Amino acid sequence: MIDTPSLVDQYCHGVLRTELGLGTFEARLGAQLGGSGALPAAGTTFFDTQTGFAVRRWCPPLLGLEAHCPPARYLARRRELGVAEAGRRLLRASGIAAYLVDTGLPDDLTGPAELGVTGAAEAHEIVRLEPLAEQVADTSGTVEAFLANLAEAVHGAAVHAVAFASVAGVRRGLTYTPEPPGPGEVRGAAGRWLAGRPAGGPLTDPVLLRHLLWIAVTAGRPLQLHAGNRDPAALAGFAAATAGLGTDLVLLHSYPYHRAAAHLTGVHPHVHADLGPVLAHTGARAAAVLAEVLERAPFGKLLFSSGAHGLPELHVVAANVFRAALTRVLGEWVRDGAWSRTDAQRVATMIAAGNARRVYRLA
Amino acid sequence: MIDTPSLVDQYCHGVLRTELGLGTFEARLGAQLGGSGALPAAGTTFFDTQTGFAVRRWCPPLLGLEAHCPPARYLARRRELGVAEAGRRLLRASGIAAYLVDTGLPDDLTGPAELGVTGAAEAHEIVRLEPLAEQVADTSGTVEAFLANLAEAVHGAAVHAVAFASVAGVRRGLTYTPEPPGPGEVRGAAGRWLAGRPAGGPLTDPVLLRHLLWIAVTAGRPLQLHAGNRDPAALAGFAAATAGLGTDLVLLHSYPYHRAAAHLTGVHPHVHADLGPVLAHTGARAAAVLAEVLERAPFGKLLFSSGAHGLPELHVVAANVFRAALTRVLGEWVRDGAWSRTDAQRVATMIAAGNARRVYRLA
Amino acid sequence: MIDTPSLVDQYCHGVLRTELGLGTFEARLGAQLGGSGALPAAGTTFFDTQTGFAVRRWCPPLLGLEAHCPPARYLARRRELGVAEAGRRLLRASGIAAYLVDTGLPDDLTGPAELGVTGAAEAHEIVRLEPLAEQVADTSGTVEAFLANLAEAVHGAAVHAVAFASVAGVRRGLTYTPEPPGPGEVRGAAGRWLAGRPAGGPLTDPVLLRHLLWIAVTAGRPLQLHAGNRDPAALAGFAAATAGLGTDLVLLHSYPYHRAAAHLTGVHPHVHADLGPVLAHTGARAAAVLAEVLERAPFGKLLFSSGAHGLPELHVVAANVFRAALTRVLGEWVRDGAWSRTDAQRVATMIAAGNARRVYRLA
Repeated sequence: MIDTPSLVDQYCHGVLRTELGLGTFEARLGAQLGGSGALPAAGTTFFDTQTGFAVRRWCPPLLGLEAHCPPARYLARRRELGVAEAGRRLLRASGIAAYLVDTGLPDDLTGPAELGVTGAAEAHEIVRLEPLAEQVADTSGTVEAFLANLAEAVHGAAVHAVAFASVAGVRRGLTYTPEPPGPGEVRGAAGRWLAGRPAGGPLTDPVLLRHLLWIAVTAGRPLQLHAGNRDPAALAGFAAATAGLGTDLVLLHSYPYHRAAAHLTGVHPHVHADLGPVLAHTGARAAAVLAEVLERAPFGKLLFSSGAHGLPELHVVAANVFRAALTRVLGEWVRDGAWSRTDAQRVATMIAAGNARRVYRLA
Repeated sequence: MIDTPSLVDQYCHGVLRTELGLGTFEARLGAQLGGSGALPAAGTTFFDTQTGFAVRRWCPPLLGLEAHCPPARYLARRRELGVAEAGRRLLRASGIAAYLVDTGLPDDLTGPAELGVTGAAEAHEIVRLEPLAEQVADTSGTVEAFLANLAEAVHGAAVHAVAFASVAGVRRGLTYTPEPPGPGEVRGAAGRWLAGRPAGGPLTDPVLLRHLLWIAVTAGRPLQLHAGNRDPAALAGFAAATAGLGTDLVLLHSYPYHRAAAHLTGVHPHVHADLGPVLAHTGARAAAVLAEVLERAPFGKLLFSSGAHGLPELHVVAANVFRAALTRVLGEWVRDGAWSRTDAQRVATMIAAGNARRVYRLA
Repeated sequence: MIDTPSLVDQYCHGVLRTELGLGTFEARLGAQLGGSGALPAAGTTFFDTQTGFAVRRWCPPLLGLEAHCPPARYLARRRELGVAEAGRRLLRASGIAAYLVDTGLPDDLTGPAELGVTGAAEAHEIVRLEPLAEQVADTSGTVEAFLANLAEAVHGAAVHAVAFASVAGVRRGLTYTPEPPGPGEVRGAAGRWLAGRPAGGPLTDPVLLRHLLWIAVTAGRPLQLHAGNRDPAALAGFAAATAGLGTDLVLLHSYPYHRAAAHLTGVHPHVHADLGPVLAHTGARAAAVLAEVLERAPFGKLLFSSGAHGLPELHVVAANVFRAALTRVLGEWVRDGAWSRTDAQRVATMIAAGNARRVYRLA
C-alpha cells in the first residue's frame, strides 16, 4: 500500500570478514543489547531476543532456508556459502541504496568503499570524534601541538566525511554545562590528560570532550550524538546553545527515551532523530515504536538507519523491520482517514531517504 | 458506541482576531511543538506534523472543503469567510460547552467572554500567576508593598477565577525544595528582584516563584501546574507537601511523561492530570496515548482540555481527536469484555466533563 | 493458541484473614496505586481504576456471580461464603502453582505455608531485608553486636529463604554511590542510628541500607529490588558493581520505567525484571504493556508475579490478566509471521514459570 523507496542508512558500521560459529555470532547479537560483549545469563541465549527472532525471520530465506530455522542450521548454511557470498546476498537484498558508515569502531570491519561494493550501493564515511582525538594525541608532542592538530584534524576530516559522530560526548562531556570551555580550561585539561595517558588511552575528560564537540560544530558537517539510552534532557542545553549556528544535530540511540528525543526535534530546527536501534532492535514491536516517534516529531526530522555493526544480517533486519513498520503504521492511518494516501506516501519517502539526502547533502 | 457528552475544555486560551496567511498560520502550528516560535528547518514545514495533518483532516469540511485539502486552499477559504465567521463555525462545531481560559499569554487573543460568545458556550477565567506577580511588581514601590499587594492580588483573583495556573513555577521554582520559603528568604529575594528588574521584567526567581505557588495553595482554587514536558518527579515533593490542604493540583503538559503524571494522580487524592496537549498534539496517535494515561490513573482524576491558543482550529482538533480516541479505546475494552458498557459510558462522561465540573465546581 | 502452563508467582504477599466491607476492600485497592493508604478523592472511588474493573471482570464468576456486577453485591457474596472459603475458591482458580511470599509487611497476612495450603500450591519465603535489620537492632545492645548479628541474620535467613527483597534500599541507599561502604563508615552510621532510634524505628540511613544490600549480595540468594516507580538509572551503578559476583538481581515495581528496566536486563547477565505490578495494575492495558517489556529484554530475563497483597482477588487478577496478555501478544506475532509458533510457546513457558524456576532453583 505504502511504497518505500530505496533506503539511505544514515548510521551504520561495516561487517566482519571472518567466518562465524554459533558462539561468535551470538556474541554479536548480545553486543546489540548495549552490554560490553557480556555472555548471556547461564541457561539463556541472545538468540532469544527480538533481534535474534528477527534475524531468524528475515535472513534464512535469503540464503535458501526456511524462516525461523534453528540458528545452527542457519550458521552452517552461512559458512557453506562463505562470509563474502553470504554478505553479498544479504546486503543486496536489503534495499539500502546508500550507507553512511561510522569507521570509528576498533573491530576489523569493512570500510565504506568495501561495504558499498559488497552491497552494490553508495557509501560515505562518518568520522567518529573520540578516536580521531586519540590518534592526534598519539602523535602530538606538546599541549599546544595537540590542540592545534586537533582542530586541524577535525576540519580536515570535514572535507571528505559526510558527518561527525560522538559516543562519549553526551554521556561524559555535557554533564555540567553545554557551553564551549574557555581556552585556559581546555589547555589545563589537555595537559593533565596527555601527561597521564598511556599510548592509545581513551578520551574521557569532560572538558576535552566538550571542546571536541564544539570544534565539530564549527566544521560545517552534521553532528551525530549518541544519547546513551538516557533521557535526552542532558542534550537540551547543548541543543539550545547550538541553535542558529548552521550545524545540524542528529540524536542516536535514544531508546527508551525516543519520545523525548522526538519532542526535542520539534523544539529546535537543527535537531533531528535517528530511528536506527529504536526500531531495529525491537523486532516484532517496531511498528508500535515507530508510531510513538511519529507522535511529536515533525516528519522532516526523522532519519532511517540500521545502526548495524559486524553482521550484514543486522543491516537486513533493520531495513525489513523498518519497511514493514512504516507500511503498517501509515497504512492504518490512511485506512482510518486520519492521513491522506498522498501525504502518507510523501512522509514514507522522506523518512526512508529524503530527509537524509537533504541533511547530508547527498546527490 | 460510546457517547461523549458536551465537553468541558479545562485549559485553553483565546483566538486571534487577525486574518492569517500561510506563514503566520504555520508559525502558530510550530508554537504547539514547544519551541519559542522558531522557524521550521529549511526544506520542511510545520504542516508536516500530526497537528498539521489533524487540522487538515477535521477543519476543511467545517468550512465547506474536502478533508486533507492543501493548506493554501484552506487558508484562502478561511480568509474568504473572514476570521470572525470562520472562528464561529469552527468553535460551534467543536462540541465544547464550557471553556476555562488562561488569560496570561501576551498575545492579543479573545478573552473568556468573547470566546464564550463566539463558541456559544460557557466561559471562565484561569488566572496565570507569573504575569499577575509582574503586574504587582510594576505598581509596588517597596518590598513590603510588593509582598502585601501580591498576596492581596492572588486572593482577590480567587473571587472571580475558577483556577490558577503557573508555567515557570515547576521548572524554576520547585528545583531545590517543595516547602514554602521563610519570610526572611522571601523578603531578600523580593528585594533583589525588584532592585534589578526593568519594568515588565519576567519573574524567574526560584524563591519568589515558590512563594507565589504557596500563596495560591492557600487561596482555595485549583492550581494548574505546567510540568514543562519533564519527568514529574520534581512535582512529587510539592504534591506530598500540599496533601490534605484542600487545594487540588492539576498537572498540565506532562507528555512524554504522561504515565508518570497519571501514576501520581493515584498516589495523592488532590492530584489530577490534564489530557490536553498529550492528546491534541499527537493526532492519529491520540487513542494510543489516551490508553496509556488510563493505565494507572483513577478515572476520576483525568480532565479533557484542548490547550489551544490562537487558532480555533486547535480547539476543534483537540475535541475531535479526544472524542474519537475515547470512543475507540473504551469501545475496544467493552468488545473484549474487559469493561462493561455501562462503566465505559460513565467513565467517558467523567473524563469529558464530569470530573472538571466537580473539581472547578461548575454548575 | 498459546498455552500457558501453571504459573510461578515470583513475588507476592499473603491474604487477610478478616471479613471485609466495601470501604475496607476499597482501601486495599487504593493501596495498589502506590499511595500510603490514602482515601480516594471526594466524589471518586478506587473501584474506578483498571484494578477495580479487572477485579469486577474476573472475580465475581468465581464466586457464582456475573462479571462486572456492582462492588456491593460482590462483597455481600464474599461475606456470605466467608473469607476462608472465598479465598480458597479464588486462589485455586488462579492457575498459580507456586507462590514466593515476601513476609516483611506489617499487616497480619497469611504466611507462605498457609497461603500454599489455601491455594493448593507450593510456597516459599522471601525475606525482606529492612524489617530483618530492624529486628536485629531491637535485640542488639551495642554497635559491634548489631553489626555481627546483622550479618549472621542475613546469612541465616539465606538457609531457608528463596530470595531477599529490599524496598527502601534503592530509593534511599543507592542515591550517592553503589559501592559497599567502608567498615568505619558503617560503624559510624550504625552508632548514630542505634543511639537515636526508638524501639521498632525504621531503617532509613543510606549507609546502613547500602551495607545491608551488600551483605545480601554475598549471601547467595537472588536479591529483589523495589525500584520505587523511578527511572532505574539509579540502579545502573549497582548493577555494574555487582556484575560477575554470582548473585542475581530482580527489579520490582519499575512502571512506568519498565522499558528502561527491560533494557538493563539485556546489559547485564545477572539482572532480571519482574512483570508484577507492571501488568497486574494496568488491567485492560496489560497486553500493550507486556509488549513494551518484550521489546528489549532477553526473554530469559522476565518473570511473572502478582505483587498481590491482602486480597486473593489480586492474585487472581494478576494471573488472568497476565495469561490473556501473553496469549494475545505472542499469538499476534505468530499470526504476523514474526515469531514461529514453537518459539512463542517456548517463550510463554519461560516467562510464566521456567525463568523463575531457574533463577530461584525451584524443583
